[in-house]
Amino acid sequence: MSARVLLPWTDIEVPEGVEAAYYDGGEAVPDGLGEVEFYVLPYDRGPEPPKLIKELPALRVVQSLSAGVEAVVPLLPAGVRLANGRGLHDLSVAEHALALIHAAQRDLPRWFAQQARGEWVREHTRSLADSRVLLVGHGSIGQAIERQLVAAEAAVTKVASRPRPAEGVHGVAELPELLPAADIVVLILPDTPATRGLLGRAELAALPDDALVVNVGRGTAIDTAALLAETRTGRLRAGLDVTDPEPLPADHPLWTSPGVVITPHIAGGSASFYPRAKKLAAEQLRRYVRGEELLNLVDH
Amino acid sequence: MSARVLLPWTDIEVPEGVEAAYYDGGEAVPDGLGEVEFYVLPYDRGPEPPKLIKELPALRVVQSLSAGVEAVVPLLPAGVRLANGRGLHDLSVAEHALALIHAAQRDLPRWFAQQARGEWVREHTRSLADSRVLLVGHGSIGQAIERQLVAAEAAVTKVASRPRPAEGVHGVAELPELLPAADIVVLILPDTPATRGLLGRAELAALPDDALVVNVGRGTAIDTAALLAETRTGRLRAGLDVTDPEPLPADHPLWTSPGVVITPHIAGGSASFYPRAKKLAAEQLRRYVRGEELLNLVDH
Ligand SMILES: NC(=O)c1ccc[n+]([C@@H]2O[C@H](COP(=O)([O-])OP(=O)(O)OC[C@H]3O[C@@H](n4cnc5c(N)ncnc54)[C@H](OP(=O)(O)O)[C@@H]3O)[C@@H](O)[C@H]2O)c1
Ligand SMILES: NC(=O)c1ccc[n+]([C@@H]2O[C@H](COP(=O)([O-])OP(=O)(O)OC[C@H]3O[C@@H](n4cnc5c(N)ncnc54)[C@H](OP(=O)(O)O)[C@@H]3O)[C@@H](O)[C@H]2O)c1
Repeated sequence: MSARVLLPWTDIEVPEGVEAAYYDGGEAVPDGLGEVEFYVLPYDRGPEPPKLIKELPALRVVQSLSAGVEAVVPLLPAGVRLANGRGLHDLSVAEHALALIHAAQRDLPRWFAQQARGEWVREHTRSLADSRVLLVGHGSIGQAIERQLVAAEAAVTKVASRPRPAEGVHGVAELPELLPAADIVVLILPDTPATRGLLGRAELAALPDDALVVNVGRGTAIDTAALLAETRTGRLRAGLDVTDPEPLPADHPLWTSPGVVITPHIAGGSASFYPRAKKLAAEQLRRYVRGEELLNLVDH
Repeated sequence: MSARVLLPWTDIEVPEGVEAAYYDGGEAVPDGLGEVEFYVLPYDRGPEPPKLIKELPALRVVQSLSAGVEAVVPLLPAGVRLANGRGLHDLSVAEHALALIHAAQRDLPRWFAQQARGEWVREHTRSLADSRVLLVGHGSIGQAIERQLVAAEAAVTKVASRPRPAEGVHGVAELPELLPAADIVVLILPDTPATRGLLGRAELAALPDDALVVNVGRGTAIDTAALLAETRTGRLRAGLDVTDPEPLPADHPLWTSPGVVITPHIAGGSASFYPRAKKLAAEQLRRYVRGEELLNLVDH
């Protein structure tokens, strides 16, 4: 007997014992949903793919390709296992964090505006090298960001939920003492009750003038109104791939707040993701048909 | 007897035995030029500071703060030693190379244009991770760029003037075989007869479709007309901090060529440069008054 699996791509090699059907998150849904045991969720296709879960009575495993699975968990029937995409996006998200930092430190919006006017006017900029970076979140992605910051010779201070002195990681309770010494704060945190509003009015006020706040985790970690108040006056700057609310409405004041650069939650979705995602899916299917332990299982 | 030196900053500590005068490259020139033995050239202040050399009859040493000193060499009287700023800009230039790569790979100009319109429209982008990068120039700055590329998990191939197999460095003669396998080419070369036009029509034609050409060394290394022809059609992309000619005239077609991002030769001049430059100047003065060997001497 072969196991029926639902995959988002036709170009991956499936192991023996797997019978594949394809669903890319679009309109076309394949037949035979009643037998699907293993569902690899199409990546970044909005709310529809997770809704299909309730049409799969034989389902045993959902493989998400995202690191954050908070939208999938409430839709899982009891007994269905969930694996996430931990690791797949690390490099993509990490390099996007660096892109936002460089954009802000090296004034890229200014040069692009000058380019549009054919204007060769020079001025010195801030830098990342020698900057004091407070990296809040030191999981899979945070560690990839750290390696790139260290290579750029920034002075990195690391924060996670609990202190781990052996690794030089501070606990989040120390944030109030750490913020005043940060030129740049980078947030790479999941959305949980404990992370919501982590940077509020008091925390932002503790940052030195001209500090840069970068968020590539989830928008909810920053109190948007407080950030607006601090960027509107030019006291703080920001580089955001995630916002709260999301999507940011067309008339939201954050779009035009001085010193704020915004990208529309695209840190994870870049070319380097796909080969890594396909490799993980193939490996998980191999483990599934052999009855081996799956990777990246999430408690839910 | 103390040595008279001409410095661009008043806020550096000078060693005992040094009598400092200040000239920042502006209008005000100090008295007593006739006794100046050691001249630290103001950084990035155009052609005037080097011209002062001919007014300094007692001159023994010129300390440039640039890595490239081709504009100073012709102005040096016989017997005057020249030291360059090798190393001071490494991190600044290297991080700007990364900024240009990220800007191009992660479509930053597109997101900034969307931001100006309040538009949250998402699309996946290219990445740096897993890209094949051909790094041409593996000196002081090239090595700093390499460390940042490696941390971003790009696949780096290194090229210098001569092969150094033990370090994995290819010689420039191998360029024709290396170009077809490069997703990104980064040039960080001095301006010399051998580097001028290094990327001409044939070399650019050897690159795969959609490849990105980044130049943070000197504009002369690329044949501008050939690059224009390849970017105009959208076949190649470019990220340039240096151009030929420079400054780029307002009506030059490179400004508006598709897929080209341009910054006005600002890679070296960022905040991290100044503390490093002041440290070097102080160390050189210390060595000079003690009669010790100077750092960064240039054959000329
Ligand atoms: N922008 C995008 O496109 C994009 C793409 C992928 C992922 N993301 C987001 O990035 C998040 C992080 O991903 P990851 O793979 O690095 O996750 P991860 O490996 O689970 O790491 C999460 C990190 O956050 C820390 N943390 C959790 N709660 C905290 C709190 N209250 N205070 C301080 N630190 C806390 C954890 O601390 P401990 O180390 O102490 O556990 C850990 O270091 C994901 O959850 C996802 O929401 C965004
Ligand atoms: N954009 C800016 O703001 C900015 C700022 C600072 C410097 N720069 C430019 O960057 C240049 C490089 O600086 P650096 O400090 O890295 O210099 P460097 O330490 O002297 O290194 C120069 C590198 O170029 C290689 N090279 C020289 N001629 C070559 C050729 N014909 N073909 C291939 N490779 C060749 C050298 O090869 P070997 O290793 O075999 O000798 C060496 O690896 C400077 O000369 C300056 O013009 C630009």
